[in-house]
Amino acid sequence: MNLNEKTLSSKEIFKGRIIDLYVEQVELPNGKTSTREIVKHPGAVAVLAITPENKIVMVEQFRKPLERNLVEIPAGKLEKGEEPETTARRELEEETGYTCTHLEPLISFYTSPGFADELVHLFLAENLEKLSEAAELDEDEFVEVMEVTLEEAEQMIANKRIYDAKTAYAVQYLQLKQAMQNSSK
Amino acid sequence: MNLNEKTLSSKEIFKGRIIDLYVEQVELPNGKTSTREIVKHPGAVAVLAITPENKIVMVEQFRKPLERNLVEIPAGKLEKGEEPETTARRELEEETGYTCTHLEPLISFYTSPGFADELVHLFLAENLEKLSEAAELDEDEFVEVMEVTLEEAEQMIANKRIYDAKTAYAVQYLQLKQAMQNSSK
Repeated sequence: MNLNEKTLSSKEIFKGRIIDLYVEQVELPNGKTSTREIVKHPGAVAVLAITPENKIVMVEQFRKPLERNLVEIPAGKLEKGEEPETTARRELEEETGYTCTHLEPLISFYTSPGFADELVHLFLAENLEKLSEAAELDEDEFVEVMEVTLEEAEQMIANKRIYDAKTAYAVQYLQLKQAMQNSSK
Repeated sequence: MNLNEKTLSSKEIFKGRIIDLYVEQVELPNGKTSTREIVKHPGAVAVLAITPENKIVMVEQFRKPLERNLVEIPAGKLEKGEEPETTARRELEEETGYTCTHLEPLISFYTSPGFADELVHLFLAENLEKLSEAAELDEDEFVEVMEVTLEEAEQMIANKRIYDAKTAYAVQYLQLKQAMQNSSK
């Protein structure tokens, strides 16, 4: 079955600092028409960074859409034309004051494919080293850095201080890694 | 440190069928001002449904924001005032033709806390039973149902037919469950 939806018209509703919004008229597979509301986003990176003490580096920040703080793994938007790996290293340095000598891609995923094209690239950072001078945050960014054990991160998921998809995925990744190490013992 | 951002003004840019868009002027923790672009979404459910043959029920559909098909676990938006568990059962029945006698919440997470308030509630559905008469899809929804093994799902992540956060989380959940069963043997 061909599931494609043909674009009949596209209207730009909003062009913002971070997102753009379009409303498109589409022809459905059965020939009828419908509308799609589409948010365009530059994409983002997220970094699961593990300290030499085997702790996870997290940042707490206020998330205006939710009107509350969340604890998340370090993350940030892609700059135009920037390679995700470059963004990942930069965001790690800016948000946490760490740099790393090992950075590997774990997975990429769309966060909300029903209405947005945001793609998040998740990296694992190891061999962390403290920068002698902290890199500068964006001028509208305020974060608090913390280092937590896997058990503490699991607790923070249970009490909803950690409450977002990329961080939940990253914590589950570490749980899986630990379980696989246990099963191979 | 108080990380709160006080709303100075809020402007409605768009009210749509599914999402609304606001631009807010905020006062940052340092007293300066900035703007936040905020997408309001009703929230959604997703269902990791396991057949008696231990296969995962997936649906393939065209995702207009990405201009391509994705294979995802069944999912759908919350109706106003609807309990997530009710939505989960309805979406499972509408999209897959299965119902279930066991439905349990696994985790909830915000998908894109930087610009949207969409919260996804993920459920595990077991004890599936085929409905004698398939429930009806929304009139602008076209999906193809498939049943895949965990190994096939891992392959689909590798080749990016599965490429979204909730489905990646659900597949990793099953990998973790399997690894924990192996380690307790």
